Amino acid sequence: MKVAVFRKEHFNAAHRLNNPNWSEEQNQKVFGKCSNPNFHGHNYELIVKVTGEVNPDTGYVMDMKVLSDLIKERVLNRFDHKNLNLDTEEFSELNPTAENIAVVIFNLLRVKIDPNKELKIKLYETERNYVEYPTE
Amino acid sequence: MKVAVFRKEHFNAAHRLNNPNWSEEQNQKVFGKCSNPNFHGHNYELIVKVTGEVNPDTGYVMDMKVLSDLIKERVLNRFDHKNLNLDTEEFSELNPTAENIAVVIFNLLRVKIDPNKELKIKLYETERNYVEYPTE
Amino acid sequence: MKVAVFRKEHFNAAHRLNNPNWSEEQNQKVFGKCSNPNFHGHNYELIVKVTGEVNPDTGYVMDMKVLSDLIKERVLNRFDHKNLNLDTEEFSELNPTAENIAVVIFNLLRVKIDPNKELKIKLYETERNYVEYPTE
Amino acid sequence: MKVAVFRKEHFNAAHRLNNPNWSEEQNQKVFGKCSNPNFHGHNYELIVKVTGEVNPDTGYVMDMKVLSDLIKERVLNRFDHKNLNLDTEEFSELNPTAENIAVVIFNLLRVKIDPNKELKIKLYETERNYVEYPTE
Amino acid sequence: MKVAVFRKEHFNAAHRLNNPNWSEEQNQKVFGKCSNPNFHGHNYELIVKVTGEVNPDTGYVMDMKVLSDLIKERVLNRFDHKNLNLDTEEFSELNPTAENIAVVIFNLLRVKIDPNKELKIKLYETERNYVEYPTE
Amino acid sequence: MKVAVFRKEHFNAAHRLNNPNWSEEQNQKVFGKCSNPNFHGHNYELIVKVTGEVNPDTGYVMDMKVLSDLIKERVLNRFDHKNLNLDTEEFSELNPTAENIAVVIFNLLRVKIDPNKELKIKLYETERNYVEYPTE
Repeated sequence: MKVAVFRKEHFNAAHRLNNPNWSEEQNQKVFGKCSNPNFHGHNYELIVKVTGEVNPDTGYVMDMKVLSDLIKERVLNRFDHKNLNLDTEEFSELNPTAENIAVVIFNLLRVKIDPNKELKIKLYETERNYVEYPTE
Repeated sequence: MKVAVFRKEHFNAAHRLNNPNWSEEQNQKVFGKCSNPNFHGHNYELIVKVTGEVNPDTGYVMDMKVLSDLIKERVLNRFDHKNLNLDTEEFSELNPTAENIAVVIFNLLRVKIDPNKELKIKLYETERNYVEYPTE
Repeated sequence: MKVAVFRKEHFNAAHRLNNPNWSEEQNQKVFGKCSNPNFHGHNYELIVKVTGEVNPDTGYVMDMKVLSDLIKERVLNRFDHKNLNLDTEEFSELNPTAENIAVVIFNLLRVKIDPNKELKIKLYETERNYVEYPTE
Repeated sequence: MKVAVFRKEHFNAAHRLNNPNWSEEQNQKVFGKCSNPNFHGHNYELIVKVTGEVNPDTGYVMDMKVLSDLIKERVLNRFDHKNLNLDTEEFSELNPTAENIAVVIFNLLRVKIDPNKELKIKLYETERNYVEYPTE
Repeated sequence: MKVAVFRKEHFNAAHRLNNPNWSEEQNQKVFGKCSNPNFHGHNYELIVKVTGEVNPDTGYVMDMKVLSDLIKERVLNRFDHKNLNLDTEEFSELNPTAENIAVVIFNLLRVKIDPNKELKIKLYETERNYVEYPTE
Repeated sequence: MKVAVFRKEHFNAAHRLNNPNWSEEQNQKVFGKCSNPNFHGHNYELIVKVTGEVNPDTGYVMDMKVLSDLIKERVLNRFDHKNLNLDTEEFSELNPTAENIAVVIFNLLRVKIDPNKELKIKLYETERNYVEYPTE
């Protein structure tokens, strides 16, 4: 009897889209205003999905307080009110697209969550643009 | 050509998280303020997903009015404006976590929906905490 | 140059609508299923509006962190995960309608906010039912 | 490393549910007020999901600007501010249920999106009624 | 001690913007695609605000169930799943802009609500376009 | 017969809170993580309210397409995908708090809107923090 539980958190960050192997001109051409050298920013909405068996003693797949604390410790403390390109190791070389941020968040959480449970990340860059990883 | 249809309904209920086989102290330790003996409550948002072939005469997988009426009859009449622990058979012994409520709602609806159609339940306890059953 | 700032918080509570001077029959007649003796509950969304001059040094009407902490201390600690009728002094005699809860929250916050600033409360009992106090 | 990207767009249209092979009486019986001969309408919210490998140069599965433009060109220009029954070829014979509209939109976009990428459509007719195609 | 109570309801309707004293060309010029002769439509979200003294016996400004029933009887039965231009008396001559619909709804409700209470209408034509009447 | 019309738009920007007359230490003390020297960012949701008489020929207070275009020209082109502190004249000296941004947007729009119409700005920095100017 597998159930999925979801926890929604949010963080605010600045970023610019930029491939450091390309010229500024090439970056502007591909990423347009998202490549503004002085950065822009977003309110990121993050939804973490954990799937597993329901524990018959607690009725929980996972305690949502524990999941929320884990997201704060592993993700929000790292990225909230930061400049992703300048203030974080993860995106010093990697282009902080929503796709790449979702994969990085997955990896940050995966090591801390019971390997018998499945993990999935949904990340909203805006209300109209969002991504999911991994995906069926 | 399988299509999924979704219907969103809501109900308001009181509950407390509580394992009757545990001491009050153990319940407080595991469930914290969610185990307040005088109960607290939620606006539950319920999303029912039904998947099946589109009927070529109607263009419907299932008439949403029929699905809405079924949810009212089987779920809302039972749980809306109720104390889940005290007023319902389903949770007199079973801990009313979101996970368990979703499984109970699935079972209440499953017997009334065409067995050729798949059924899935999503249940929001708050905007930030929700569950899905069954789940891929 | 008066600006209004708004802070949104939420709490989950159980309640029943009940006039203690009325018979159970009269309460059922007036309040219907909202008067269920075993209680039901809500996710209350609370919006606090503070209006005043912008401080030229900070660019703030009021530091939102300070306002958020004040709401937690004065309102959420008192009502979150509580039974309003049984667990709180404020509603031991007073019927916990959305109207009365909004007035009580106003009074709890009014004494702690600079008297030169105006205060207004919006309280959502559900997405479809909400109240405002005071109101123009 | 497959990631899904989602783009949300909206359009407003009039329609009526109607099987042209049935009598008006039969249509009223099956579709009720949704079969009003003078039409009614909706704000359709459309979510397009595209799944594929992340391009290591751009960090994109697909440029969301390109996806948004494609949806505008193929879907919004055709259906926005239109009467689906009277103004469109697609629904001159086909009943414009949410299910059928989702399948039509899928087919309109499928031919324009890289065949190595998967495509899925979610369509909200109202906040409480929505559909998905294809579906797992 | 005046409190405002709000009730949110919704209806779906078709309409076109059209001044019958103007040529079709003039209507197209002023109203653009909103003047499509075959109509388009919306999910209208309606918020009704009633302001008055709190009744000390009930703790209510107005019973929300009574207000909801009144909106259904006076507004939704008249406009839901209708073509505003063709199926209603109110808009047979009057252009069904959001502004005019809000004023018409105000007048339909005003006569049925206690004259000691104030009434205000908010009407969402889309999530991004809405109106209020009367307004301070 | 005065009616208010509302138009919602959004823009994404980077900023930091900073009083240039203060030491870095003082800025950190007052603005905390909002003063990160490398900036953070937001999805700003902007709601513009225009109040006036309904034109009897059009049924409009103001054409929402004209209002939307005006907001794009005067506000979004200036602030969207920008660093408010580095890329804009308006906030080169002025601290870009939500309060100050709302006042600046008001002034940018006020000069372009019919002086017989009233103007009000609501600006969401996050879903939980927002401001209004002017305000009653």
